[in-house]
Amino acid sequence: GTAPAIVHAQANVRWRLASSFPKQLDTLFGAGESFAKKVSELSGGKFQISVHAPGELMPAFEVVDGVQKATVEIAHTAAYYFFGKDETFAIGASIPFGLNSRQMTAWTYQGNGLKLMREFYRNYNIINFPGGNTGAQMAGWYRKEIKSMADMKGLKFRIGGFAGRIIERMGGVPQNLPGGELYSALEKGTIDAAEWVGPYDDLKLGFYKVAQYYYYPGWWEGGPQVDFFINTKAYESLTPEYKAIIEAASAYTHVNMQAKYDVVNPGALKELAAAKTKLMRFPTDVMNQAFKESMALYSEISAKNPNWKKVYEDYAAFRKDQNLWFRFAESGFDEFMQKQRF
Amino acid sequence: GTAPAIVHAQANVRWRLASSFPKQLDTLFGAGESFAKKVSELSGGKFQISVHAPGELMPAFEVVDGVQKATVEIAHTAAYYFFGKDETFAIGASIPFGLNSRQMTAWTYQGNGLKLMREFYRNYNIINFPGGNTGAQMAGWYRKEIKSMADMKGLKFRIGGFAGRIIERMGGVPQNLPGGELYSALEKGTIDAAEWVGPYDDLKLGFYKVAQYYYYPGWWEGGPQVDFFINTKAYESLTPEYKAIIEAASAYTHVNMQAKYDVVNPGALKELAAAKTKLMRFPTDVMNQAFKESMALYSEISAKNPNWKKVYEDYAAFRKDQNLWFRFAESGFDEFMQKQRF
Repeated sequence: GTAPAIVHAQANVRWRLASSFPKQLDTLFGAGESFAKKVSELSGGKFQISVHAPGELMPAFEVVDGVQKATVEIAHTAAYYFFGKDETFAIGASIPFGLNSRQMTAWTYQGNGLKLMREFYRNYNIINFPGGNTGAQMAGWYRKEIKSMADMKGLKFRIGGFAGRIIERMGGVPQNLPGGELYSALEKGTIDAAEWVGPYDDLKLGFYKVAQYYYYPGWWEGGPQVDFFINTKAYESLTPEYKAIIEAASAYTHVNMQAKYDVVNPGALKELAAAKTKLMRFPTDVMNQAFKESMALYSEISAKNPNWKKVYEDYAAFRKDQNLWFRFAESGFDEFMQKQRF
Repeated sequence: GTAPAIVHAQANVRWRLASSFPKQLDTLFGAGESFAKKVSELSGGKFQISVHAPGELMPAFEVVDGVQKATVEIAHTAAYYFFGKDETFAIGASIPFGLNSRQMTAWTYQGNGLKLMREFYRNYNIINFPGGNTGAQMAGWYRKEIKSMADMKGLKFRIGGFAGRIIERMGGVPQNLPGGELYSALEKGTIDAAEWVGPYDDLKLGFYKVAQYYYYPGWWEGGPQVDFFINTKAYESLTPEYKAIIEAASAYTHVNMQAKYDVVNPGALKELAAAKTKLMRFPTDVMNQAFKESMALYSEISAKNPNWKKVYEDYAAFRKDQNLWFRFAESGFDEFMQKQRF
């Protein structure tokens, strides 16, 4: 290629970012800060983004409205919070029995994921850029053992949005409570169980002191992706160079957030084990029933919601192929490694 | 933060990149091109990197010398090619029974990996930036079944560098052959087996026509990372903005190369299966013996090579923790998903 000799000065740009994540979730909130720092470095300090915790500019779950109406230029959020507007949002983050972290990244960057989700988000004046993944989450803290489907009946379970629909179909009673109220609700027995994220975040909230059973896997969050949502007009007003900066800084953030979770979770898991937490695998019959209900729900939504249908068909075909391939080299390697004593 | 109002023009920079990967490996070679394109976009076309296949500027396995002596500013390569200079290079890419792709990324970006490897590479006037991963590889193509350790004795196996040491300790005869000669050597029976990468790359070379057994997992390459190696003086001469561009463009490349492999491998696997390839899991006694020999070799190297010892101790502790954690949420989720019929 040739290097143009033109001296061009980029304009100063200032944006405000509304995060849906409390500062306490430092890995998630911190990804927004890391992104802003990288954008600044890449632009020689000329493109500045201030990062705001929920409540500073708007509540956590109003950031889609905020970006859509251009109250802020950008948000950092998990798309599934907004499934009430349209279930298709959930696919952008995680649906029960969906893709794992690496598969979600592959679908997004090199499959049809980014293209399809952008087509959908355009209805909200939004263009998205991947901005992290937590990896497969734990299935939460339970005051009593879950031995079979019978134990799901009437279970008052604090669980986020979309996945609550599956819990409901299984006879459970999904509860909506903010993170700050979970500990005391679990302690008092107002709720029977609560899911949050994984060892690192869960340890900080101290759940292990009031519920001894810590279940896995979090089948509703096998690889939840978070995204930067940008107002399309704000994005379109950028120079090609600044657009490239947004893309590269988000990829940098995406890879680093997953890496950070992977680095901090093992130590937290060891602390929890030392505190007598009982690590429990979800019973197979419960998993099977949850899977069945999930697939049934997806068919029902497909029949009613053409946005969902279009994205889900591609996503589901991709999931099938990924699970076909991952069982050989990847899982063959991981299974062996996890059995070794190092 | 504040946005400085100074108009500063970045200088034009031109670099040459020597790739160790033939153009035929389009995912690997293409990652170098993708990186160069991103650097150009991020710099408004002022930072140009021309990408050269092996042989154009230097042979594939001389790129470390090339960067060290500043014949080129940058190379895209797999560090384990250079284990003959110092075994520590191998840890930067993949060692038998090492980290998987996601764990390697975590160690590199958020563990001590980048710090430790950079300290080591400094001896070669090199600073590295992660530049992709293939994911767990397949264990290659075999003319005859491997039923037990007895079948490893005398096996003439084309296998890359460092891992050959383990094959040797197991009674096998590692062979060095360029990719272009593998097909005919396998066909003629000059070699008994050959490993290359995974379904996508292996399909192109047509191995399935001359060897019907396709083994997994590639226990010597659970998550091989490739890197950009940059001459430290060339790097230090960059502005802070251009340094940030290198970092972000490499992260973008890193995430996209793994995503690309994940997207293209399943289709190739299905084609191979349709062509009657027999997918075979490596027998447990062979895996166990390979594991034992690998750990013994690492102890021997630790006793002799302080560079290796320093990096490997950190790497091994990280591997232990990662495998402890990944067996719960991640593997619990993956195992269930891989059993479903979609």
